[in-house]
Amino acid sequence: VRDLGQRSETIRRANLSAIVRALHEDGPQSRSDLVARTGLTRSAIRALVGELTAGGLAVEGPAVLLGRPGRPSPEVCLVPEAVTAVAVFIAVDSLSAAVVGLGGAILAEARVERPRGHMEVGVIADDVVGLINGLPRRHLHADTLAGVGIAVAGVVRRADGVVETAPNLGWRAAPLGELLRHRLGWDVPVLVGNEADLGVLAEVRRGAAIGATDVIYVHGEVGVGSGIIANGRPLNGSAGYAGEIGHFPVVPDGAPCRCGSYGCLETEVGGETLLARAGMPRDLGVSGIDALFAAAAAGDPVVLDAIAITGERLGTGLAGFVNMLNPRLIVLGGLFGRLLPFAEARILQAMARRTLAAPLALVEVVASKLGEDAPLLGAAELALEAVIEDPASRLEERDDTPALATA
Amino acid sequence: VRDLGQRSETIRRANLSAIVRALHEDGPQSRSDLVARTGLTRSAIRALVGELTAGGLAVEGPAVLLGRPGRPSPEVCLVPEAVTAVAVFIAVDSLSAAVVGLGGAILAEARVERPRGHMEVGVIADDVVGLINGLPRRHLHADTLAGVGIAVAGVVRRADGVVETAPNLGWRAAPLGELLRHRLGWDVPVLVGNEADLGVLAEVRRGAAIGATDVIYVHGEVGVGSGIIANGRPLNGSAGYAGEIGHFPVVPDGAPCRCGSYGCLETEVGGETLLARAGMPRDLGVSGIDALFAAAAAGDPVVLDAIAITGERLGTGLAGFVNMLNPRLIVLGGLFGRLLPFAEARILQAMARRTLAAPLALVEVVASKLGEDAPLLGAAELALEAVIEDPASRLEERDDTPALATA
Repeated sequence: VRDLGQRSETIRRANLSAIVRALHEDGPQSRSDLVARTGLTRSAIRALVGELTAGGLAVEGPAVLLGRPGRPSPEVCLVPEAVTAVAVFIAVDSLSAAVVGLGGAILAEARVERPRGHMEVGVIADDVVGLINGLPRRHLHADTLAGVGIAVAGVVRRADGVVETAPNLGWRAAPLGELLRHRLGWDVPVLVGNEADLGVLAEVRRGAAIGATDVIYVHGEVGVGSGIIANGRPLNGSAGYAGEIGHFPVVPDGAPCRCGSYGCLETEVGGETLLARAGMPRDLGVSGIDALFAAAAAGDPVVLDAIAITGERLGTGLAGFVNMLNPRLIVLGGLFGRLLPFAEARILQAMARRTLAAPLALVEVVASKLGEDAPLLGAAELALEAVIEDPASRLEERDDTPALATA
Repeated sequence: VRDLGQRSETIRRANLSAIVRALHEDGPQSRSDLVARTGLTRSAIRALVGELTAGGLAVEGPAVLLGRPGRPSPEVCLVPEAVTAVAVFIAVDSLSAAVVGLGGAILAEARVERPRGHMEVGVIADDVVGLINGLPRRHLHADTLAGVGIAVAGVVRRADGVVETAPNLGWRAAPLGELLRHRLGWDVPVLVGNEADLGVLAEVRRGAAIGATDVIYVHGEVGVGSGIIANGRPLNGSAGYAGEIGHFPVVPDGAPCRCGSYGCLETEVGGETLLARAGMPRDLGVSGIDALFAAAAAGDPVVLDAIAITGERLGTGLAGFVNMLNPRLIVLGGLFGRLLPFAEARILQAMARRTLAAPLALVEVVASKLGEDAPLLGAAELALEAVIEDPASRLEERDDTPALATA
């Protein structure tokens, strides 16, 4: 009997997880939708949704009352404020932080540009803490915060949040997760992932690749990173280092790269190279890239030419990806998402020259829908996953604890 | 009650599958081993093993009576003859066929060299049927044959067994599966896969990569193919085309490749290029490669130099793989497995120059343990999988039907 009780409790927790996952990934939906999606009976859905609403994780009502257009039938909707994540994106040119609620809504966000150049991990950790402390206090409650997720432009060891190398930040073996856990002083998990690994997660859940099972997200900024979904699951490799397309050799004996190798894709298509090709100073950062695309939109032939050449080199790199991974979708993020409308033909031509016909015929190249928010939203997914996996852990009664403060 | 009955039947089938999979993948083992491996109770294991032995799929006895050395405790052992697959490997230089029993034992095998050059798929299908018909009749019984698995040196659409392209065989959109199904006239599934995709499956199950979850198998013959296991599962891509490292660009504006592109890895490290580099005629095939490695073993400096250059180019190609997929293990098969002992240092040096430090530190390069049999054993896995997934389907009583004959 004890075994049976344990088993039925295990099943209850798994079923609650299935419902929360459906609502988190696919948005608000009716109980009938949940029956179809989870395979649970109507009465099981009723009881479990009842638990979630009683615990404050969900509300139920006509779509119109929930503030959304569409069908008038009652829908179940997660309460974003009930479980939150602090998401951080450490790019080379900028820092962002956000509070993201269960269901993926951004409740508050802050972003600062950062001067280019190497900076100690401790200094950046301080800046991140400052940025987080600037977020509205009402969204930072100890009883709702599930964790902190951090996307970073570097090679990350998932197990302990150490950034093995981030050539464009000048880091080596930087214990970023540990540092932030200590400086924030919060009793929640602090998880670190590569920007592109997290970007692809967000694009698959709520961006340009919803429902796709074989996707590559390629993110361009100063460096180039990629995140891979294969067979519907993140491909992180044996230690979380997978997807380093940026240091992929495309020009033998090419220009030296910050990573120590040379002729890397990143040196051919990164933001600095694009600026230099367009005759602009290499180190203009975010505002330089903005100016470059404004000039392109205005028809500046030198800039359009620089974009075309960059697109061609990018397409050559993507060809290797297509041959190797046979994806259905390539999502271009960051700089590359902005490049696509101007250079689509050149990218596709270069890909076609280097890709086998069969996989080429199946692949589509699209721009990110989430733009700069993709890695940030992916970082939130990282931090929310434990709650989605076991929402029952959040259904116990809590006291009204005060807002979080950092040490 | 009907639901419960259906459910308990589903559970019985799943448990039988877990036991057969354990025995098939890890070899004969005691009931205690099966308890540990499957998590089932001792009494459940007893009943299910009883079903398997009553149905003739397994036998149980002291290891010594089963003809194997080792522990005297009773072990459960699959009966290879009870369920068999016909496995075929269509390489560019040779054809092989084998009967492989449940558990992975090769019961009979035949191989013929093939003259180099393009040959219509229909002609090769006839040769394959001839080779299969030459296998001992006693191993070809309709009541034990689970299916036919075919490994081929080409890009395969898994869904229907069409070889989309096999540049080294001169095929395009060749309906290989359909043709062989028709010519054999047997009422069993005929499944087709890429040689390297199947090679890696075999190496992980019973070769150089047992138990590894992130593995790349790179197979060299005339062409170069690769098979990927990521997160413990085969990475086939959206349509089965993944792993085409052979057409990976390594030398921009390099020599034209049969695939239509140029500067492909395959043109730099394939068997013909290796022979040419060693000053031997390009088209010597299997016997030429044998002669080349005999000369290398005898210390021929020209041949050793050709091997070193080839190893270096191969290492450059592998670097891209390591950066992209962060594998723990690279298994070199076919030609490359033979090359490794002579060129290990050059391969590793070239990899190190192009690979990021973090993933490089984790990866090991080893030679295939199954050699030329890897794709063949992988093809057998493909054909046996349905029985391993549902062995209960094989436990019904069968008549003693005569040996299979082809039309």
